Amino acid sequence: MADVQARMEGALARLLPASGLAPARLHAAMRYAVLEGGKRVRPLLAFAAGEVTQAPVERVEVAAAAVELIHAYSLVHDDLPCMDDDTLRRGKPTTHVQFGEATALLAGDALQALAFQLLAEHRLAEDPARQLEMARALAAAAGSRGMAGGQQIDLESTGNKLPAVELEFMHIRKTGALIEAAVRLGALCGGDCPKALEQYARRVGLAFQVVDDVLDAEASTATLGKTAGKDSKQGKPTYVSALGAGAVRAFAEELRRGARESVAPLGAAARRLAELADFIVLRKF
Amino acid sequence: MADVQARMEGALARLLPASGLAPARLHAAMRYAVLEGGKRVRPLLAFAAGEVTQAPVERVEVAAAAVELIHAYSLVHDDLPCMDDDTLRRGKPTTHVQFGEATALLAGDALQALAFQLLAEHRLAEDPARQLEMARALAAAAGSRGMAGGQQIDLESTGNKLPAVELEFMHIRKTGALIEAAVRLGALCGGDCPKALEQYARRVGLAFQVVDDVLDAEASTATLGKTAGKDSKQGKPTYVSALGAGAVRAFAEELRRGARESVAPLGAAARRLAELADFIVLRKF
Repeated sequence: MADVQARMEGALARLLPASGLAPARLHAAMRYAVLEGGKRVRPLLAFAAGEVTQAPVERVEVAAAAVELIHAYSLVHDDLPCMDDDTLRRGKPTTHVQFGEATALLAGDALQALAFQLLAEHRLAEDPARQLEMARALAAAAGSRGMAGGQQIDLESTGNKLPAVELEFMHIRKTGALIEAAVRLGALCGGDCPKALEQYARRVGLAFQVVDDVLDAEASTATLGKTAGKDSKQGKPTYVSALGAGAVRAFAEELRRGARESVAPLGAAARRLAELADFIVLRKF
Repeated sequence: MADVQARMEGALARLLPASGLAPARLHAAMRYAVLEGGKRVRPLLAFAAGEVTQAPVERVEVAAAAVELIHAYSLVHDDLPCMDDDTLRRGKPTTHVQFGEATALLAGDALQALAFQLLAEHRLAEDPARQLEMARALAAAAGSRGMAGGQQIDLESTGNKLPAVELEFMHIRKTGALIEAAVRLGALCGGDCPKALEQYARRVGLAFQVVDDVLDAEASTATLGKTAGKDSKQGKPTYVSALGAGAVRAFAEELRRGARESVAPLGAAARRLAELADFIVLRKF
């Protein structure tokens, strides 16, 4: 994991525009929002999926960077005053606190554009049609039926108690879609994405958000590097509020086992994916 | 022009997610931001460029829609309180006035994703590599070295008097980049983009912004459908403030003639492009 994380930091630092390049302040904000932070869960998943299809790592790091840029932009916009209005992220002041709202907004916008630029301008597959498929998958995951749509539902549900089935609908979009895209893009760098990986990705994507809800309720701000207890303070419906902490932990455990089962038939090539299911469910931050 | 505009309205209405589809409020905001408004200058340019390379219109309308979605999202974000804080656009309340800031932010984000989704999922060229080239061109035009970068420079220059050469640097990014992308994507739907078209696009892109500056200073809010006189009120550097209205009109005329000359060697196939140079410079709104 540490190897992949170090490799990703290098790739992201190289693929983002240099901070001296004009407009320098915008580029500084983009780098600030992306570098030195985050667990890089999506890149870890992309690399692990790439192992299944024997994808060259130089390709996977570009595809993983594209996914991570979408994730990073969503955090910048999500933290803005008109959304969650948060001041702390990854243990640092949020991008708009550091650079101002307008620059943070534009930095998020430019990060999204850069993600698609990376997918279009690097050679990530023998067949360019497969590369178009990657761009399509990432765009769908980021858009109104994916991540942005999930955030909209989140927005509208604040203050309401949602039943677990609607929570799932929201989370599959808000977090799950991009996690699925990470697995898929990583695999596509080497060949077709096996069906088993798609099932794995759905389970892990949901598990990630379920655990996030538990951590928001139980961990400290210092451990998380972001404001803890935010969900209940903002009246957001979570798995914890819908099911109670005990049932949620059992649900996460079920998803972890399910994710491991999904990829078991792939044997040793899927070892990293199985380990990541554990990491995602058993993490403390 | 009216034919192309009507065709584009139909294409955009069809390519945007239906407003009944969940999350309905987000989709309603996206449709509100895009439909029933605008001169559709970028689609007009894409169609005119497509005539030069004999591009099938079913392809051009998708490529033109992608460019127009990027343009529409940039207006939504540009109008937000943390940016220009504007309440009127295309004769209607701006998207955040109508739907709230958070939904407007997400609608802009989702429109950008949809633009790339359209380019990736429709068949726009025989060769998928050419289609990747379209996605690359649009992403570069939208990103930190294109439109978003131009808006950042605009932001930072407010309150300063910029020399004309720096204004040009800003406008080539803020407006020019996306107009160039419109011409280029339209042409690429039929074949290679002739060098003459790229020169034409640079001239027309700059002319568009130069004329915009004049109109902001001289036309009324009713004619423009957006708040007039905003630039000087906000202390933004413009061509009018840098050169004076007379010199700016002469500059626009020079660009118009230059744009027509660029495409003259292409003969009758470039008739629409020549007419659009006139339309862009001689328009009153």
